[in-house]
Formats: sequence, C-alpha cells, structure tokens
Amino acid sequence: MRPPEAGELLVRAEFLSVDPAMRGWVSDVANYSEPVPVGDVMRSFAVGTVVASAAPAYRPGDRVTGLFGWQEYATVDAGAVLRRVDEDDLSPSLSLGVLGLTGATAWFGLSEIARPAAGETVVVSTAAGAVGSVVGQLAAQAGCRTVGIAGGPEKVRLCLEEFGYDAAVDHRSPPLAADLAAAVPDGVDVYFDNTAGPISDTVLPRINRRARIVVCGTAAISSWDPWPTGPRVERHLLTKAARMEGLLFFDHQHRLPEAVAALAELVRGGRLRYREDVLDGLEAAPDAIAGLYRGENLGKRVIRLA
Amino acid sequence: MRPPEAGELLVRAEFLSVDPAMRGWVSDVANYSEPVPVGDVMRSFAVGTVVASAAPAYRPGDRVTGLFGWQEYATVDAGAVLRRVDEDDLSPSLSLGVLGLTGATAWFGLSEIARPAAGETVVVSTAAGAVGSVVGQLAAQAGCRTVGIAGGPEKVRLCLEEFGYDAAVDHRSPPLAADLAAAVPDGVDVYFDNTAGPISDTVLPRINRRARIVVCGTAAISSWDPWPTGPRVERHLLTKAARMEGLLFFDHQHRLPEAVAALAELVRGGRLRYREDVLDGLEAAPDAIAGLYRGENLGKRVIRLA
Repeated sequence: MRPPEAGELLVRAEFLSVDPAMRGWVSDVANYSEPVPVGDVMRSFAVGTVVASAAPAYRPGDRVTGLFGWQEYATVDAGAVLRRVDEDDLSPSLSLGVLGLTGATAWFGLSEIARPAAGETVVVSTAAGAVGSVVGQLAAQAGCRTVGIAGGPEKVRLCLEEFGYDAAVDHRSPPLAADLAAAVPDGVDVYFDNTAGPISDTVLPRINRRARIVVCGTAAISSWDPWPTGPRVERHLLTKAARMEGLLFFDHQHRLPEAVAALAELVRGGRLRYREDVLDGLEAAPDAIAGLYRGENLGKRVIRLA
Repeated sequence: MRPPEAGELLVRAEFLSVDPAMRGWVSDVANYSEPVPVGDVMRSFAVGTVVASAAPAYRPGDRVTGLFGWQEYATVDAGAVLRRVDEDDLSPSLSLGVLGLTGATAWFGLSEIARPAAGETVVVSTAAGAVGSVVGQLAAQAGCRTVGIAGGPEKVRLCLEEFGYDAAVDHRSPPLAADLAAAVPDGVDVYFDNTAGPISDTVLPRINRRARIVVCGTAAISSWDPWPTGPRVERHLLTKAARMEGLLFFDHQHRLPEAVAALAELVRGGRLRYREDVLDGLEAAPDAIAGLYRGENLGKRVIRLA
C-alpha cells in the first residue's frame, strides 16, 4: 500500500471484475492492449472507495470505478478512473456489470454499430450472459424480435423467462441449425456475436441484406494458436452487402455517461434485469477466468472483497 | 427484334459488358440477385443507341446504358436504363467500365465504405483490374499510400508503371506474406478486397485499428460448393475494432451521377488511367466470363458488336 503522490489516488476495492477479455490480456499473442506480464498485477476493472487522494478531483470517501487491477488497495493515477459512481441507491458491483463494462458494451454495440430498427430480428450469442442479456433486453425495447443462443437448458430458460427473448435456442443441442432457422423466419438483421466459432457459422447463412454483425467476443474459440479455420464469411458479406465490425469498449468510452444514465434508469424502473455471479475473496480469482470459458457462470462475474 | 410497347425502348447495342459477377448470376446458388435461367438472355450491362422509343424520356439516337442483356437488339422497359450517356467526347465503352459498373464500384467503395484519409495505407487485390486500378488511383489522389496485389510480373509492372501504386506485390510469387509485410511498414488501414481467399488471408493479420475492409469480389474462390474454409476473421476484427463490409453496386446507384461526373473529369484530365480488353462479336461471349477467372484479361472486358 503506497501512499498517493501528486495526481494519484489510493483506492480500497470493494469488487473486482472478471471478464472474458482477460484471457487475451494474459496471452502473449498480439492483442488490442499490451499483454500483462507474468508477475504484474492483473489488469482489471474494480470499484471501490478513495482512501487517500493527491488528485484535486477526488476526495476520500468518493466511490470510483476504473482500471485498478486485481488488488485490495490500489495506488493509481487519477487517469485510471473510468467514472465516479454516483448511483448510491444501487450496489456498487453494478458499475462492473450492467452499469459498467458489460452493460455499456451492449449499449455501445447497439447504439454505435448495429442500430437495430423496430421490426428487425436481432440474434445474440451467449444470450444469457452479462453482455448478451443486456443486448436482448435493449433490442426488445427497440421493438425488435430477439432470439438468444445459449448453452444448455438452464440458460435457454433464463433467456425466455428472465431476459424476455422472443425465442431461444440451445447451441449444445444437436439441431442448432434447424432450431435457429425456425426461430428466425424472417432472417437475421443484427447478429451480436459473443462467441464466433461454430455458433456463428450457423447464423451467417441466415443474414439478411444490410445485416450488421457486431463482433464482441470469441468465447467459443478456446485458442488462437494455431489459428482456427472456419467457413469463409466473404461471400455472405458480399451478397448481402452486410457489415461485420469489431467492438471495443474503450473506443466508445466518450459515450459512457450517456450509456450509464440510460441503463441506470432502466434498472431503477425494473425494465432491465441482470444477474451477478459473486465470488468471494482474491483467492477465487485465478480460476475465475477459465470458468467463464467453461460457461459455469450465470451473469456478470465479480469478486467481492471483505 | 420486337417493337417497343408503351414505356419501352428498342436499343441497338454497341458494347456488351463481361463481369466477374456474372458467374454468380448463372449459378443456382442463392445470391444477391435472381439466377439467370438456362435459355434466357444473359443479364448484362450494355451501351447502345435508341432505335425506337415508346417512352417519353428517350428519343431515337439517344445513347443509353443499362441492363439490356447480351443481345444485339434489346426491347426493354425504360426502367432498365441506368443512365443516359452524354460523354460524346469519350468512347461509349467507358460507360461499361471506368465510367460505369467498375469505375463507380471503386468510387462507391472508397466514398461510402472505406473513406480513406490522407496518409493511410490502402491495399487493393486484383490491383491492375478494372475495379482495382481505379481504387488505387483514387486512393493515391486522396493522399494515401497505395499497395497493389496482382497476379504475375506483367500485372505488377502495370500497377507500378501505369496505375501509380507506391508498391505492388505478386501473389503468384511464393513469399507473398513477406513481400506484403515489406510493402506495408505502417500496416493496412483500408483493404479493398476483390479476391477473398489466400490473398486476403495474408492481408488480414496486418490490419490496423479501425481498418476498413471492402468486400467487393471473391475472384480467388472458384467455387462456393462445397463452401470453402479459411482462417477465422473474427479475432482480427475484434482486436482491431475493424470493419468488413460487402459492397454491391446497386445499393449505391443513387450516387452514380456524382461518381460518373467525378470519374469523367479525371479521365479527361489524364489523371485516371484505364485499360480495356475488347473482344469482338457475340460469339466471344461464352468463354469470356471464365477467362476473367483465369486472369487472362488486362483491363475491363467488353464485347464490341459490329
């Protein structure tokens, strides 16, 4: 615990985030951000309270979220703060999920890339997950038909009963292609893709003209070394004049206040449901990322510190 | 030769177009337009002179281009006319190429999808072709570094000497990956893709953040049945927040007058070079499409009628 120097804060973390992107961050394969070297603190979002501040914008007692790493006490530059957390009526953990990286990612993907219109069909993979469940609900509120793809009957049930999808299909069930075809009688206008891999290969042949595919995650690909192959996408994109675009949270960060305001209003009105998967203590961390790829969590995974 | 009824024109064709997309049109695999059934007139752009008109907007002697099919005399609805050809100082055949489908496709791809900025690197496959050569020249005029990929030393030479690419690499030469890497020291901001396949697989790992990939053609894929596989693109798109988008000429047709005006001005000023590959007579038609895929033409292929 190092006291803050000029421009720094000392933050005591309440919750740490566990995100699929972390597997990429600890890989030494080129990525959108620098790899985390062995021996360093794991890069992570966290939410906590300022204990000491040498930065004029923050005072002890302020609650903030940002890239503070997997640690109980973080001495960080004030620039590591993503935002001040002012939703005192809601759990601070939400700033790591539905009001944070995952919720805002869903909001960004729809608002900035997919822009679904009422009446369009929106398909979501890992549909019951922290990003997917928000995508499905926001798309439904935009007047879209929403179809979730999830792994196993429990997640399919969650999609239908908790997250309000119009239809949901189980990608672990063999007739996925047929199930999906039946669920999208008018084709697919937006595919919010959190998996890539064989699941996406089933969706691509069903896209409509001018479809938008948001590439948000690749959860179905356990390794990119060796680089996996799959059916080529070029002809689908060409013959449908469709678009496939990668979504990175940080590219859209300037709209975070807008996203959080919109999402918090929906949460307070009971119109945006979310699940949290809370693990206790730093000692739960090492296996927590791998568990995401095993699909064992229902909802946004966070680590609660005592 | 059927006389025109109300709303129709009788056009005598001067030039017929031969385009890579035609292979798709005569395939019975689902595509962006209806297949041409066996026994029908081949769908095609053509340019010619109105011989008789029962449509108020056209008079005998007018030169028009449109979807008139591979035939000497076409009795067509006035709606088949794409535009009136007013560039009397230029060969009418240009309305099938640099001032038509291919030139406008290049212009649309850059103006509507890629929007390259000065200083960016633009890579083009089939770089010496009818679309590619226009892309390269327009991108150079926008202040970009242009890198062409072409098949064989003669086309590479054309890229450098005639179409002004800053660099050109031969995809038939074994060290394509190394040659391309050397040609794009700052990575790839725009990839105008006319081939798909192994050529594109070499480009994708070199894209920069926010890269734009215009999917304009799949000339390197000789058949989509069975559907070919290749390295998955999702991770490239995700980690670079890049975009891959299909380009269909007809989706941008409303901007054709603007495109033709811009391209014609460049042609007249000697600032846009083009090649034509002129075959004589309808009897040359059947093998003309296959020849495109054998890469035997240098420039836009058209058929001249006597």
